[in-house]
Amino acid sequence: MTDFPPIAAPDEDVASQARARQDTLTKPPGSLGRLEELSVWVAACQGVCPPHQFERARVVVFAGDHGVAAAGVSAFPSEVTAQMVANFDAGGAAINVLAEAAGASVRVADIAVDTNQPHSPSIGAHKVRRSSGNIAVEDALSDDETRAAIDAGRRIADEEVDAGADLLIAGDMGIGNTTPATTLIAALTGAEPVAVVGRGTGIDDAGWSRKVAAVRDALYRASGLSADPVGLLRVCGGADLAAMAGFCAQAAVRRTPVLLDGVVVTAAAMVAELLAPGARQWWRAGHRSTEPAHTLALEKLNLEPIVDLSMRLGEGTGAAVALPVVRAAVAALTSMATFGEANVSS
Amino acid sequence: MTDFPPIAAPDEDVASQARARQDTLTKPPGSLGRLEELSVWVAACQGVCPPHQFERARVVVFAGDHGVAAAGVSAFPSEVTAQMVANFDAGGAAINVLAEAAGASVRVADIAVDTNQPHSPSIGAHKVRRSSGNIAVEDALSDDETRAAIDAGRRIADEEVDAGADLLIAGDMGIGNTTPATTLIAALTGAEPVAVVGRGTGIDDAGWSRKVAAVRDALYRASGLSADPVGLLRVCGGADLAAMAGFCAQAAVRRTPVLLDGVVVTAAAMVAELLAPGARQWWRAGHRSTEPAHTLALEKLNLEPIVDLSMRLGEGTGAAVALPVVRAAVAALTSMATFGEANVSS
Repeated sequence: MTDFPPIAAPDEDVASQARARQDTLTKPPGSLGRLEELSVWVAACQGVCPPHQFERARVVVFAGDHGVAAAGVSAFPSEVTAQMVANFDAGGAAINVLAEAAGASVRVADIAVDTNQPHSPSIGAHKVRRSSGNIAVEDALSDDETRAAIDAGRRIADEEVDAGADLLIAGDMGIGNTTPATTLIAALTGAEPVAVVGRGTGIDDAGWSRKVAAVRDALYRASGLSADPVGLLRVCGGADLAAMAGFCAQAAVRRTPVLLDGVVVTAAAMVAELLAPGARQWWRAGHRSTEPAHTLALEKLNLEPIVDLSMRLGEGTGAAVALPVVRAAVAALTSMATFGEANVSS
Repeated sequence: MTDFPPIAAPDEDVASQARARQDTLTKPPGSLGRLEELSVWVAACQGVCPPHQFERARVVVFAGDHGVAAAGVSAFPSEVTAQMVANFDAGGAAINVLAEAAGASVRVADIAVDTNQPHSPSIGAHKVRRSSGNIAVEDALSDDETRAAIDAGRRIADEEVDAGADLLIAGDMGIGNTTPATTLIAALTGAEPVAVVGRGTGIDDAGWSRKVAAVRDALYRASGLSADPVGLLRVCGGADLAAMAGFCAQAAVRRTPVLLDGVVVTAAAMVAELLAPGARQWWRAGHRSTEPAHTLALEKLNLEPIVDLSMRLGEGTGAAVALPVVRAAVAALTSMATFGEANVSS
């Protein structure tokens, strides 16, 4: 299913209540800066003021390989994707550690890892295919696969919300995945490949040149599709990106706030906004990565990152580091004393 | 006592071990960005790699009034300082809520609140005087009071480290305190008052003009003192600022890492670096506030803020919001799997 219902906005009446409550708390009005805006957003998403603290924040890491890795666009071999899925499952990856530090739990979904044997049945439950095609020379997916991948992301969002998730983070794992992500962002913003292609996990100059060429070729193949989200994902995206797009859009359908991560998730989110216009009202940008395309995508979505720490790992790690800031925002709005309660002159 | 012993640097051998360990963890080298640098710093401060997670992070809020408030430089009346001390003690202020969210505890010290009756004996244990003088027209303190206030901050740092604190945050509370803070920063950087005076808790244009005039007059009185930290604190600082300076310097003596907060604490830290050269190696900047002088002070200390969220409250709140980022950095270095452990190709 790629037809999303109209997206309702977070509750503006509750947002007004939250703004009014902020001005009663024992501090100069506005002095908590972005924490105040974030607290108002959470209250409006939850439809209640004061908002409740997140009790089940969930990270879903979408894993998939990309045929374009064969073009030498990454510093790591494709086999690392499956190895990292095992590492997520064992709890040893950065996202496991950072999510735990932030009070969130992690799920990994094999959407298109280049293996016939998913690490476990639950991890492979929504698998679409082995790897996505090499977008420099061929479509990433068939039309059916694209729709199946979007639907996989939708179903994962539904599963998580049905299980009680009150905040969602999408993460990515896939050698080569910043190449389709950058292509999608370039296609949706009109940016030149040389201006937005970054170093991904750390390629050298020759690899960067190959990556620019791959993005340029994929972008050429995607010309004319900038208003066709399913077409874009099919031609120059990938199954993992399509699933992330479905996930971000469905979270908005389910009125559940999302913290976006880096360039890959944000590329998928741009497509999700085309699939389900207005979905972005349910998202905040966790961080700004060092990838040039990420900044462009954030500007296009009109999202200001919460932290900016020169991270470039993916997996949801940037969003996980931002989560405690959002928790702090919620705590301040919920638990601070008012001027009246504390007998402080306002 | 204003004579500090030479400040030793954090352990560079351990820093090297920490950098080497980062490169064995299952992620592209450098991909955790500033988290990696922060983790190396914590390891070097603790002298052990991997470092341990903070078990007793402590916020000390230094409260003091300022005679210059009578010049109409603040949006709030001086009585709020004492009222907020009571609010801290009752747990209702922003720093109480944000510290708890970050796993830190809060202590408040009445250094120079304009009352003869401290809120409790323990809060008043290090009190120096009632309010500091109006720096626009007179010295903030006598020489003896200045030294007593620096010593109060030193003793508070010692008390906290002796009680097991493994990370310290200084916070400020005092109506009018951004006026002496801005004056100190201008005196130490040569900045023009009109370029660095901010809105503090939110003064209007007329109040801003009065504040610029007060800073200009205080700065004139402090001319020639830019290499005399005790003289600066005496003429254009205040007892709370002197205590914070002693606290930040003594933390370095005691090899205990510090997260700096906003413009008031960072002004005190600049003076602390004069009192105990090299102390800044034991500090990181928690956040960047909206006060123009704060950015100038951070540049002078060569510190890059961890978060930048347009906060301008003080109390240690910016540092408290940054603390989970430092915790995340420690957790990643300590708990992530290595390439070897996870059988991931590096």
